[in-house]
Amino acid sequence: LRVALDAMGGDRAPKEIVKGAIEAVREGICEVVLVGRRAEIEPLLKDAPKGVAVQDAPDVIGMEESPLRALKSKPASSIAEAVRLVRDGKAEAVISAGNTGAFVGASIFLLRLLPGVKRPGVAVPFPSDNKAGICIVVDAGTNLACKPVHLLQYGLMGALYYQAAFGVQKPRVGLLNIGAESTKGTEVLRIAYSMLREAKQVNFVGNVEGHDLFRGTCEVAVCDGLVGNAILKVAEGMGEGMLRWLNRALERYLKNGGDEKVKQFVFEELNRLGNYASYGGAPLLGVGGVVVICHGRSGADAIKNACLVAKRLHEGGVNHRIIDGLAKMGFGWWRPSRWMEFFWRGREDERTQKGEDSGDRRLRS
Amino acid sequence: LRVALDAMGGDRAPKEIVKGAIEAVREGICEVVLVGRRAEIEPLLKDAPKGVAVQDAPDVIGMEESPLRALKSKPASSIAEAVRLVRDGKAEAVISAGNTGAFVGASIFLLRLLPGVKRPGVAVPFPSDNKAGICIVVDAGTNLACKPVHLLQYGLMGALYYQAAFGVQKPRVGLLNIGAESTKGTEVLRIAYSMLREAKQVNFVGNVEGHDLFRGTCEVAVCDGLVGNAILKVAEGMGEGMLRWLNRALERYLKNGGDEKVKQFVFEELNRLGNYASYGGAPLLGVGGVVVICHGRSGADAIKNACLVAKRLHEGGVNHRIIDGLAKMGFGWWRPSRWMEFFWRGREDERTQKGEDSGDRRLRS
Repeated sequence: LRVALDAMGGDRAPKEIVKGAIEAVREGICEVVLVGRRAEIEPLLKDAPKGVAVQDAPDVIGMEESPLRALKSKPASSIAEAVRLVRDGKAEAVISAGNTGAFVGASIFLLRLLPGVKRPGVAVPFPSDNKAGICIVVDAGTNLACKPVHLLQYGLMGALYYQAAFGVQKPRVGLLNIGAESTKGTEVLRIAYSMLREAKQVNFVGNVEGHDLFRGTCEVAVCDGLVGNAILKVAEGMGEGMLRWLNRALERYLKNGGDEKVKQFVFEELNRLGNYASYGGAPLLGVGGVVVICHGRSGADAIKNACLVAKRLHEGGVNHRIIDGLAKMGFGWWRPSRWMEFFWRGREDERTQKGEDSGDRRLRS
Repeated sequence: LRVALDAMGGDRAPKEIVKGAIEAVREGICEVVLVGRRAEIEPLLKDAPKGVAVQDAPDVIGMEESPLRALKSKPASSIAEAVRLVRDGKAEAVISAGNTGAFVGASIFLLRLLPGVKRPGVAVPFPSDNKAGICIVVDAGTNLACKPVHLLQYGLMGALYYQAAFGVQKPRVGLLNIGAESTKGTEVLRIAYSMLREAKQVNFVGNVEGHDLFRGTCEVAVCDGLVGNAILKVAEGMGEGMLRWLNRALERYLKNGGDEKVKQFVFEELNRLGNYASYGGAPLLGVGGVVVICHGRSGADAIKNACLVAKRLHEGGVNHRIIDGLAKMGFGWWRPSRWMEFFWRGREDERTQKGEDSGDRRLRS
């Protein structure tokens, strides 16, 4: 697996990004192509192992720039160049902690959507008390005006990703709503509810509410990008807040002659569960390549773990599965009728396994 | 102040509700009329102080019932009877921890909206690092399809509530969005942004994101009910999750010969900040009376604190201020043109202070 990594993206670029890349290569997760200003990257590569390459990209898109304008005015930005490596088959996955809008835009424009996909969706991990310890929420900010069919597709794509990445056979999919009953919510949510209920490919458990994410009621929660983005940042803010208040409490405890050792126990556990870095990154599901979005504040650890996410996506063949699953639902230009499916299923699987082009020119993972 | 309290609402009714009522009366916060099945309430009132009365209501609406159907089929439910006490002037405020939909419905049908209000909104408190330690979010679940003008009104109503309840002169109002720039979000959010920016009555600080609620960037955050409900429950779930993980960590620490005393320090601080009971309840802003919604799991403490919230709303004259503020913005059937306002302002204020009917038959607080 070769990963194209935007070395200039994020608040702590390029130092932490390069450090994370070197760690990922050392641990044998993948090879990395660092994309960005060669002059800034190479000094950081003194003791780099084999498997770390550099691809020059003169432009850098800032975190606050307007995505579309930046992509147009800076055609050779590190983000666009990194995505281009995947388009041209020189890398299998792309990771960036930079301007999320620009990264999503470049991915959609250059890699296109998988056949059958109506809208791509970002799948962000939340800490949860289910088996794998993770609940993913799709979408977290790319699709603000969701139609019911988008939510249906997010349910399928999220479940296929979860299956491949965390080895759970039938991930439970919930629709994030304001209450458990099927009549709750807006019209879009009610229609999405009935579509998800009818979909045989999705193990739908009905409406879920915000607290269910953490309680392990489901493995995948589906919502529109506005809600997903809001809850992502609220969970982050609440987690930070709790840690701040906990720190305050522990300081008072220590002042009153407390035992220093407690800190180590407490923060070890909470950091593992509440820290985004341990999850690495959020895949953009539905585009024709493996795309992993990192948090703007990502350090070396987060980057390394994002490489792990990319590896899981690649080796799990998530994009193949998405095309297949959507086709079975009747999406995409390749729509098998029942008997067609019956006759062709065997051959199609054979060809896919041999690594041949299964009739889809846009698939690159 | 006399409060009508739905004694049958919530998971821990009627015992905890009655206990909370007795505490509130003992502490001199208010008088309470307990509404519900007399036979179940009176045995709990053995050592009740003066100021606790009982009003019989034979029906009870369950937490899971469909709100509108329940209100129709059970006209004499404890929720409806409690709201009726306010409509008929026998109480100044109403509190319930029962079926939220039914409570909101009964409040709107029986108390009507304040003149000028397009949609009522629930204002829920979040823990925050600003001066008062609280950031309120409007709306948290009554209005799922917000128009820009609703968000504008929520901004004003939220600010007036905050001002009266927490004594902050110019509460900062933010629009909850997916990013800070004015061009972010859906069309509704972009229009709401420009409306809020133009409104002189609102101290608008622009778009805010989820984590800003906890960092103290604003005192009031405005969003539609779908987003508000989701973030409320996610914050709750994240808080619960963090406490669970913290408990786990502390147990491991104690097993390794730790110091028992730390628990007391830690949970004291976190409970004060992260526990909904300490905030009491969420007012329903925009209806013609003081209405406070409690969490379904409310215990005695939460109920007592909800009485405090009702007291603040009543004594702060929040509903008067809302009518006034909206009228200045040009909402409501009472729309003073500039010169009308100039001539009539004095007289209007005089009459209101004397407690006379200021031309508004629907105002009851």
